[in-house]
Amino acid sequence: MSAADRRARFHELHAREGIFVMPNPWDVGSARILQSCGFEALATTSAGHAWLLGKDDHQVTRDELVAHVAELAAAVDVPLSVDSERCFSNDAAGVAETVRLLADAGAAGCSIEDWDPEAGRIDDPGHSTELVAAAVEAAHDRPDPLVLTARAENHLHGVADLDDTIARLVAYRSVGADCVYAPGLTDPEQIATVVAAVEAPVNVLALPAAPSVSELGRLGVRRVSTGSLLARSAYGALLAGARELLSTGTSGYAELGISPEERAAAFGPWT
Amino acid sequence: MSAADRRARFHELHAREGIFVMPNPWDVGSARILQSCGFEALATTSAGHAWLLGKDDHQVTRDELVAHVAELAAAVDVPLSVDSERCFSNDAAGVAETVRLLADAGAAGCSIEDWDPEAGRIDDPGHSTELVAAAVEAAHDRPDPLVLTARAENHLHGVADLDDTIARLVAYRSVGADCVYAPGLTDPEQIATVVAAVEAPVNVLALPAAPSVSELGRLGVRRVSTGSLLARSAYGALLAGARELLSTGTSGYAELGISPEERAAAFGPWT
Repeated sequence: MSAADRRARFHELHAREGIFVMPNPWDVGSARILQSCGFEALATTSAGHAWLLGKDDHQVTRDELVAHVAELAAAVDVPLSVDSERCFSNDAAGVAETVRLLADAGAAGCSIEDWDPEAGRIDDPGHSTELVAAAVEAAHDRPDPLVLTARAENHLHGVADLDDTIARLVAYRSVGADCVYAPGLTDPEQIATVVAAVEAPVNVLALPAAPSVSELGRLGVRRVSTGSLLARSAYGALLAGARELLSTGTSGYAELGISPEERAAAFGPWT
Repeated sequence: MSAADRRARFHELHAREGIFVMPNPWDVGSARILQSCGFEALATTSAGHAWLLGKDDHQVTRDELVAHVAELAAAVDVPLSVDSERCFSNDAAGVAETVRLLADAGAAGCSIEDWDPEAGRIDDPGHSTELVAAAVEAAHDRPDPLVLTARAENHLHGVADLDDTIARLVAYRSVGADCVYAPGLTDPEQIATVVAAVEAPVNVLALPAAPSVSELGRLGVRRVSTGSLLARSAYGALLAGARELLSTGTSGYAELGISPEERAAAFGPWT
């Protein structure tokens, strides 16, 4: 499927009734495995990608992200959305350049968030809305527009101010964001309040404490993503195996590994 | 630690009394995590590396392997041994070139095996011994010699002929291999027989059915590696999480993920 076809498909998924799950691989292998499970779209994870490279989140460069997106987009047929953090810039021109580079690398969509990792704080909503507007313009001003997701980071950073979160998401939608997302929300009432307020496709992060996918669907949520949780789980399994080797010296951990048949389904000939 | 220091250290680990565990990461993140657990050496895994790239085992190119080794060797301080399959050549000159490229990339050791993936068969022992000799010469003919591991692949390919395996390992040792390895052996008596016959450091693959590390130590085994098992386990955890999302739509899988403290230990500032 061409990049343009995948972008059109990704817009369709957001326009369609009902909820869909968009899990987040962190390398080509995990992308191929998730595709083999039948998910209709995938998204990158900035934290998982950072761990793959042996780094902490927010330490990955834009060049590294663009190369990562090119690899993953080439390895799967479904639309790929990019967790592009704050789009690696403090100004509209830089944000737009990032979106264009990700589009050239094969992204079907990308996100922009309002956490400034260098300053270590949430952006002023005026500034973040300007940056979202720049990202939207770059994502949409092309024959094959990308799906632009705008993220309000309050709840990942201990700011439990739902009114501010909603005001931000409404502002981001007002400048054209295709999907809005406040990672960290788990309370069904709060999620329903966001859905009612923003009048836009809403993404929810599938945390253990969050409602199930079908419950989120009933609350009006359009899209569910997994953030860094699948990567956390995979590296957690590695650590459990390492600790078994160091304690009892046995390899029982390996009994739950991916089977040859599952690997063949994921890593067979690329279409 | 310099590449030369790590090679000297890797030789010391093989000369030292007692057994050590050399687990196999498949990306920079897993290498950093395993280093944070305190393992004294690490090794690559051809299968795990292939899966990382969304490929099946034996589909990785030499250029891809060399780049992988450079990344992993730069990310950790402990000696790194390379699962270099059959060294990507049918002749001595090509094998030697592969060993030199891996040394230049920062390897402390590498392996050569007698399974020919293109022909789909175990090499004739005369030919495989010639290739091992070429690998040994390239590994040792330098001021900072690499540790060369020679592998007999019979037991991974359904050839349960212990006499042939031992004859091969003895031949590989006779041309200078520093360590010998027949992946797939799990029976304590067979392992003890190999150790007694080869008079060389022996590596055993830590399969679930194999004796524990301490039992292997009592059998005289010097080194234990995990092959692709840790990678299998990590991608198995991914698959389990994906299936939970697809069935119940919940994220209980994430409760066992690597913690922030564990990530900080692994992905903190590089030394």
